Amino acid sequence: MNKIYNPTRSQWNEVLKRPTQTIEDIEATVSEVFNEVSQKGDEAIKKYTSLFDGVDLKNNKVSNAEIKDAIKQIPSELKEAINTAKNNIEAFHAAQKTNGIKVDTVNGVSCWQEKRPIEKIGLYIPGGTAPLFSTILMLAIPAQLAGCKEVVLCTPPNKEGKVNPAILYTASLCGVDKIYKIGGIQAIAAMTFGTETVPKVYKIFGPGNQFVTVAKQLATRYNVAIDMPAGPSELLVVADETANPSYVASDLLSQAEHGIDSQVVMVSTSKEMIDSVADQIEEQIKGLPRREIAEKAIENSRLIYVDTKEDALELINEYGPEHFIITVSNENFYVDGIVNAGSVFIGDYTPESAGDYASGTNHTLPTNGYAKQYSGVNLDSFMKSMTFQKITKDGIKNIGPAIELMAEAEGLQAHKNAVTIRLKDLK
Amino acid sequence: MNKIYNPTRSQWNEVLKRPTQTIEDIEATVSEVFNEVSQKGDEAIKKYTSLFDGVDLKNNKVSNAEIKDAIKQIPSELKEAINTAKNNIEAFHAAQKTNGIKVDTVNGVSCWQEKRPIEKIGLYIPGGTAPLFSTILMLAIPAQLAGCKEVVLCTPPNKEGKVNPAILYTASLCGVDKIYKIGGIQAIAAMTFGTETVPKVYKIFGPGNQFVTVAKQLATRYNVAIDMPAGPSELLVVADETANPSYVASDLLSQAEHGIDSQVVMVSTSKEMIDSVADQIEEQIKGLPRREIAEKAIENSRLIYVDTKEDALELINEYGPEHFIITVSNENFYVDGIVNAGSVFIGDYTPESAGDYASGTNHTLPTNGYAKQYSGVNLDSFMKSMTFQKITKDGIKNIGPAIELMAEAEGLQAHKNAVTIRLKDLK
Repeated sequence: MNKIYNPTRSQWNEVLKRPTQTIEDIEATVSEVFNEVSQKGDEAIKKYTSLFDGVDLKNNKVSNAEIKDAIKQIPSELKEAINTAKNNIEAFHAAQKTNGIKVDTVNGVSCWQEKRPIEKIGLYIPGGTAPLFSTILMLAIPAQLAGCKEVVLCTPPNKEGKVNPAILYTASLCGVDKIYKIGGIQAIAAMTFGTETVPKVYKIFGPGNQFVTVAKQLATRYNVAIDMPAGPSELLVVADETANPSYVASDLLSQAEHGIDSQVVMVSTSKEMIDSVADQIEEQIKGLPRREIAEKAIENSRLIYVDTKEDALELINEYGPEHFIITVSNENFYVDGIVNAGSVFIGDYTPESAGDYASGTNHTLPTNGYAKQYSGVNLDSFMKSMTFQKITKDGIKNIGPAIELMAEAEGLQAHKNAVTIRLKDLK
Repeated sequence: MNKIYNPTRSQWNEVLKRPTQTIEDIEATVSEVFNEVSQKGDEAIKKYTSLFDGVDLKNNKVSNAEIKDAIKQIPSELKEAINTAKNNIEAFHAAQKTNGIKVDTVNGVSCWQEKRPIEKIGLYIPGGTAPLFSTILMLAIPAQLAGCKEVVLCTPPNKEGKVNPAILYTASLCGVDKIYKIGGIQAIAAMTFGTETVPKVYKIFGPGNQFVTVAKQLATRYNVAIDMPAGPSELLVVADETANPSYVASDLLSQAEHGIDSQVVMVSTSKEMIDSVADQIEEQIKGLPRREIAEKAIENSRLIYVDTKEDALELINEYGPEHFIITVSNENFYVDGIVNAGSVFIGDYTPESAGDYASGTNHTLPTNGYAKQYSGVNLDSFMKSMTFQKITKDGIKNIGPAIELMAEAEGLQAHKNAVTIRLKDLK
């Protein structure tokens, strides 16, 4: 584990460096799949499902029978847990609804702003070792609350052509009924272009491996929006001498088990705490089923000591962590001062995994420093704000002359004319 | 002018097609400038300013003396007009402030959402034939209202090394004091990487030519966000038999004068109205200083007749216009039914140019069909929403078991452990 003491400002860049990702070499593959899907639709999907997922599917749409079957397979305890999470996520995202706003900026000039749903949404849910059914809750719940008309979900089939039942159960619980057994690049391409069976969507959400990441980037060249740029998941914990080292270690490890490229950082104003947490990590890592992954991530982790909380805050804002745990006596100093973070977890009893699953906040968050300029997924991610204006005769008389002057100064005579022609009639 | 009658649904794609843009061939140039600016900073800026703008600048930062001088040069009438616009834009964008929301999703589990400003913002304002000082109002005002700490503005110098005084006046009025005489690709590169004189920013806003558009796209590969993908400006007017054809024609022309690739579309349930508007366009276009540009844009324009208002609405939502003017007797049918549009202008006395300058709404809007999934620039464009959660001992007892079950079902044991270790202590 890397312990770093009082890095100078000129070392911050190096200290806060994230693992570099190389994507150039897979762009060619992604382009090829996109081209073929755009031209051949379902035929290309079939081919790549066979090639990449090792299964030949007659039908890529999940049937009602498969969903019913999945519902039966989920133990009632897990169903209840998922329901608890669903209720909390629903409550928190429903509270994010905003009313339209309306302002008469000048007498006779009414302007208003309203949010309307993005009509067609695509969700990508990875399969593989961890079936991320929790991500369905995080994406499908706000999509439904926003009023999106069409929600499409793609997830890869396993070698038997099946989808994990927890994924089907959760999708069905959230009212998603267009579920397709399509994975990776070909899934993103299908939702980007549409095929005979898969509807084209306007915005694609969801995590994935590097192929999915590059495919989502490419999708943006074809008039599709994506939730946010992707990067490996990351956690930064700030802990002073009052923190509980075994809790901090458990949180750092929960992040480390995500992948070998996960980012795990601790910042502390206590050298003792750094040592204790390091010891606890060594202790706790032993029992983990995903120990190998966690160990590699921990190798790249950093435990950073700084003298003052002011330095700590500045360093943290410079990093802009996806997840930020605050476990110090003076919580408010960091709560008030943090500007760049995706989601913030406060106090001893608020582990990151609470937000990952069930507290109610969204777990789709900006990584890779993007917390500096991107929001995590929230209700607004599924809507767009539109503006409206209605001007009366008096209104155009009031602001018309200003428009004429400005249009003329910008050299745009036809813009001016559109006002002049109306003002003339009103004389 | 292309008049199209009752296109069938299978023809919609063709009828609603936008001009294609080719960007591949300029990507190499943009990459080259980016590389050089990232490595050599101001030296590279100097070189490209000399090459592309034809002027050698000692100092690329606009001085206080230059700003004072510019303020003197603006006629007081224009100053008043800009002030009127500023007040309206300020009023409408200030009203967009939202309070944080807070929800106790479960007893002991507090979740809240707050918006915090993006700290560093870059604005690009083109020079050239039309000095778009109005765009400064549209970007700098919400940036200030949001509380962005650093706002940087780049705009190209003319051959004398000067910047249009209306640009300097408006920037200064909006409190922007970091103004750089840097244009095009090198401006975007400077704000992306930072140089000795130009600060690096987190998000870049503003219009520009194809070089700027491609440069902004490239910037997103270097952890910078942009306002939205760009495309030629466009207007769609829906008009029934009650519309005023000379007003409609004046609006279509105000759009057409923007550029030869501007999109101008009219949809009507009245064949007579289509003919009258076509006549009025021919009439009004004669007097325009930018007639040549407008004529070329009008050549690509479409006047589309459909039988019913239901067809009209569906067609318009399929197009997703940047600007949408409604001039019909039953306005509410379209106001309520429009889902995909950037900004909506209602009634005879609401020309698009009102929104371009002074009504209070923002004129930086999604083009190219992006109204289907993107908002126009608004106060939130300068902020990001963050979530917070604080869980008490009781809270983790309440939701802990659900988290444990879900984490286990996803195969993420360390996520479960972070809860288990806490619950154990609380037994």
